[in-house]
Amino acid sequence: MESKEMDYQLAIEKVYSQISCAENIGEVATYIPELGCVDPAKFGVSLTTLKNESFGIGDCQEKISIQSIAKVLSLTLAYNIKGQELWKRVGVEPSGTPFNSLVQLEYDQGIPRNPLINAGAIVICDILLSNLKDPEHELISFVREVSQVNEISYNKSIARSEKSVGYRNRALINLMKSFGNIKNDINQVLDFYFILCSIEMTCQELSRTFLYLASDGVDPISGKKILSLSRSKRINAIMQTCGFYDEAGEFSFRVGLPGKSGVGGGIMAVHPERFCIAVWSPKLNKKGNSYKGMKFLEQFTTETGLSVF
Amino acid sequence: MESKEMDYQLAIEKVYSQISCAENIGEVATYIPELGCVDPAKFGVSLTTLKNESFGIGDCQEKISIQSIAKVLSLTLAYNIKGQELWKRVGVEPSGTPFNSLVQLEYDQGIPRNPLINAGAIVICDILLSNLKDPEHELISFVREVSQVNEISYNKSIARSEKSVGYRNRALINLMKSFGNIKNDINQVLDFYFILCSIEMTCQELSRTFLYLASDGVDPISGKKILSLSRSKRINAIMQTCGFYDEAGEFSFRVGLPGKSGVGGGIMAVHPERFCIAVWSPKLNKKGNSYKGMKFLEQFTTETGLSVF
Amino acid sequence: MESKEMDYQLAIEKVYSQISCAENIGEVATYIPELGCVDPAKFGVSLTTLKNESFGIGDCQEKISIQSIAKVLSLTLAYNIKGQELWKRVGVEPSGTPFNSLVQLEYDQGIPRNPLINAGAIVICDILLSNLKDPEHELISFVREVSQVNEISYNKSIARSEKSVGYRNRALINLMKSFGNIKNDINQVLDFYFILCSIEMTCQELSRTFLYLASDGVDPISGKKILSLSRSKRINAIMQTCGFYDEAGEFSFRVGLPGKSGVGGGIMAVHPERFCIAVWSPKLNKKGNSYKGMKFLEQFTTETGLSVF
Amino acid sequence: MESKEMDYQLAIEKVYSQISCAENIGEVATYIPELGCVDPAKFGVSLTTLKNESFGIGDCQEKISIQSIAKVLSLTLAYNIKGQELWKRVGVEPSGTPFNSLVQLEYDQGIPRNPLINAGAIVICDILLSNLKDPEHELISFVREVSQVNEISYNKSIARSEKSVGYRNRALINLMKSFGNIKNDINQVLDFYFILCSIEMTCQELSRTFLYLASDGVDPISGKKILSLSRSKRINAIMQTCGFYDEAGEFSFRVGLPGKSGVGGGIMAVHPERFCIAVWSPKLNKKGNSYKGMKFLEQFTTETGLSVF
Repeated sequence: MESKEMDYQLAIEKVYSQISCAENIGEVATYIPELGCVDPAKFGVSLTTLKNESFGIGDCQEKISIQSIAKVLSLTLAYNIKGQELWKRVGVEPSGTPFNSLVQLEYDQGIPRNPLINAGAIVICDILLSNLKDPEHELISFVREVSQVNEISYNKSIARSEKSVGYRNRALINLMKSFGNIKNDINQVLDFYFILCSIEMTCQELSRTFLYLASDGVDPISGKKILSLSRSKRINAIMQTCGFYDEAGEFSFRVGLPGKSGVGGGIMAVHPERFCIAVWSPKLNKKGNSYKGMKFLEQFTTETGLSVF
Repeated sequence: MESKEMDYQLAIEKVYSQISCAENIGEVATYIPELGCVDPAKFGVSLTTLKNESFGIGDCQEKISIQSIAKVLSLTLAYNIKGQELWKRVGVEPSGTPFNSLVQLEYDQGIPRNPLINAGAIVICDILLSNLKDPEHELISFVREVSQVNEISYNKSIARSEKSVGYRNRALINLMKSFGNIKNDINQVLDFYFILCSIEMTCQELSRTFLYLASDGVDPISGKKILSLSRSKRINAIMQTCGFYDEAGEFSFRVGLPGKSGVGGGIMAVHPERFCIAVWSPKLNKKGNSYKGMKFLEQFTTETGLSVF
Repeated sequence: MESKEMDYQLAIEKVYSQISCAENIGEVATYIPELGCVDPAKFGVSLTTLKNESFGIGDCQEKISIQSIAKVLSLTLAYNIKGQELWKRVGVEPSGTPFNSLVQLEYDQGIPRNPLINAGAIVICDILLSNLKDPEHELISFVREVSQVNEISYNKSIARSEKSVGYRNRALINLMKSFGNIKNDINQVLDFYFILCSIEMTCQELSRTFLYLASDGVDPISGKKILSLSRSKRINAIMQTCGFYDEAGEFSFRVGLPGKSGVGGGIMAVHPERFCIAVWSPKLNKKGNSYKGMKFLEQFTTETGLSVF
Repeated sequence: MESKEMDYQLAIEKVYSQISCAENIGEVATYIPELGCVDPAKFGVSLTTLKNESFGIGDCQEKISIQSIAKVLSLTLAYNIKGQELWKRVGVEPSGTPFNSLVQLEYDQGIPRNPLINAGAIVICDILLSNLKDPEHELISFVREVSQVNEISYNKSIARSEKSVGYRNRALINLMKSFGNIKNDINQVLDFYFILCSIEMTCQELSRTFLYLASDGVDPISGKKILSLSRSKRINAIMQTCGFYDEAGEFSFRVGLPGKSGVGGGIMAVHPERFCIAVWSPKLNKKGNSYKGMKFLEQFTTETGLSVF
């Protein structure tokens, strides 16, 4: 199957119509009210190629709360700043099971398994706080630069809401602090973390933003080097093994692309040397990943044969 | 970097000479005497392309005990027989930590995390026993067919040795039996499992045998279909997330290829659409994977840029 | 409240009639057929004082499978033989949760938490096998001597049944063997363990047998010293913290006496310096302890004020 | 052995001189500076009988930070207020291992194993906050009433110190809050908890304060009923199985009395119907219990035969 000749729009539309008819199983995330208000019937897909061809369908122009997908951006930023040293404070292994979050953190003496689970992303935020002069401003600037969209920002009321109910994240950060793996003030780190999680983008913006991971670290459109080839590949590797909580194996098995999901119902996936694709459907399966999003990507890679494997 | 123009022999030799000089850290597996007798200085590499070009260096023509690498063969055989039903009895998720073997098996009520850890491979053996008339004969025939090497067999004294000391495997199978996830007699299943683990191949044979996983399930040389495109990709996905015990993330991060290791010091890795590579060096790191083998593959994919990411 | 003036028969009868009317909740153990055949309505109580006064009601003269209660007898025998050295191979701490059996055994590298859980009792059997010339004969002789009942024996068909389905116990012993904490042949140890568990006694015999634990290690009737004062107290201490699986705290809280339960529905409890009491009702609660047995003892110690606290 | 004729002073002195000569192993708790400043050579013992005879030796008149021993006081207060309902929010089972604190709290969905581990004592503080008008004042008043010492108070600088470093306690409370088992503001609950832990008493005051647990809930000197007979026995039962973290079995085994330790190096133990004894020596063993304190009590109960078993 040749990428050049692939009619992505046709492929997307075909799978979209199949999945649209399928039952929409699962629950919208409700642990913060703002996420719970989203229309569960929303469904959008966007694919952008390395040649800057963009294909989309459904609600792909609507802003969504990208939530954990943003952890790939903070990881990129921190990896650029700290390089290999990063891995002294966070691992690169899948975490196993959901309930393990605290279990493994205790067993591993405060070192999170990987930078894409909550504990790991919080450590990354702590590292950024220690290394950036104006963390909030520099984070948003970085995201705008990578996405090439100037008005990208975060939703303050969602950030506030997350803060007000984030007891489990507070448990995680305090446990890590007790092991010495948090250097800054806990409240400052969490404030920054909640800003990160509250960033909003459309599917189209998502599929454009993460093109650098499909292109050896270089934004193929602007030509700007976001991070080195080697680090770009390594972030893909981490997404492949750790991007979907305790469903990383399932996603790898069914979809076969490195990617990252968020509880807002978004999923972003990368096909190296070819494209980045983003899907959005708010209803989540029991593991916290978009039910239709996973269905769509499974069907899409099966139909097109476009997995990394 | 273009596959066609890649001089694999040169690339292999360059990295081989670098790694040969490096310190040879770790310990040869000694839990069974036969494995402990191997010369720890052995070091061999073999790469076979989809066009049947074969490149090698060092001890790549010596028979090694492939151990857990054989679990990919039993998985292939069972997947062909049972299809999707297989996943009712074994999962596709990484297992987390080594000590979890029994922990997670108990937590997950006798369903192993994936078919490449011991518990999972034992369940696969149980399935094969239920579905093959002459399991030992049919397994070896299958391996000979896939490898296209007629004299491939297993080492009886190693199989016997493994049986005599396999207390932990006995603990695993009894625990699964208590949950109803083993259907056949425990001793028969273990006998068959130890035969599987005792299969012997050279690096060259290994890199030729697993070409079908680099080639969408079809042996590119004989043209024979070993398994379907979709299942071939899925086995690669499982190797990517689960092929290296609790170092799967590390291997994915450093090497970026789906693969499988064995405690005999062998590692096999696949680059879809290109090649299969096998490395052998008996000294194991603390996680039970070949120290030099991982070093070699990391350096090789870094130098050539040939990872799936 | 004075022991001398206590009318035990009256107290037993009063509580017996109260509990008899109460709903009989729970399930008879069915994992081996023989245990499952017992009439769930059976209910018996027997109390024997240090002065050899015996009080009973209901089915207190019927033979029951004493199951795990026998672990106190094997512990007594092994403690006499090995003394303090015993505690190198088994601990004295409660185990926490039921599912932990294998978890903790793995975490604690093959050292069972205490001698009253299955893993611990199996280690005790292994120790007895190493130290007795004719273990089966000497065990039964010891039980006959302590109980002063010559025809006490074990039920061969129950022992056989337990052996045929004892997969979890096989998992435990193999795991311990892999850590080097089992010295003898696994099958011999398990055969001996299943003999131990299949010993049969009536409630009256139970309450008479364990008088030595209420009497500083000396059988108050025969005057024979079974074990030293200090060791007798220590076995009581272990029963108090570990005698009821993961319900040891609950039993201590509700009943306040050291004791031991069995899945046959029997419970034996000791009041130091006063008496030993045995209750039998086959229906077990979710933790595997006799529902009515615990109810009876709770009510009995509440009514009489006769707890150690 | 008859209590009346026991010469407690002689017994205490004899054991005291033996233990004084023994090596003083372990480490003074240093996680808060104030505790680390204590002279590690301090060693005091006090015993008070139900007849108000008081015996003491060494540093038994010095104020110590009673730390976790105070959890028995908060439990007494809350048990009186809520009765049986208390056990909906906290269990009565031993917790198993130290590292399990967070593990088990997650597994048990925010319900602590018992009221004497940190998580459980924090829930008790939350309950008191919900039920007392002026919690700090009422707690201190209650302690003064039970101890019959009017100037008893808590050490403000220790409370402040504990607050400043209490990350693990913050992790625990946030985890429980995420499961809905904390009703009040987290900071208020922790402030109150740290006050509780910072209460100061001498050994003599300790041994006098907890007499009510040796006397069926009634202060034998003032005649005042502190709590009901049944609840008094139940608190003893909980101390017996849960009073020494993951060394509860060991303490029960070696000492045979219900008791409670604190990281300040104090231990309080109760002999029902006879006395309460308090020991203080600041160096802690690896499980966090006073090394000499446990040694003394083991020797004392062995010499005198005065255990509950």
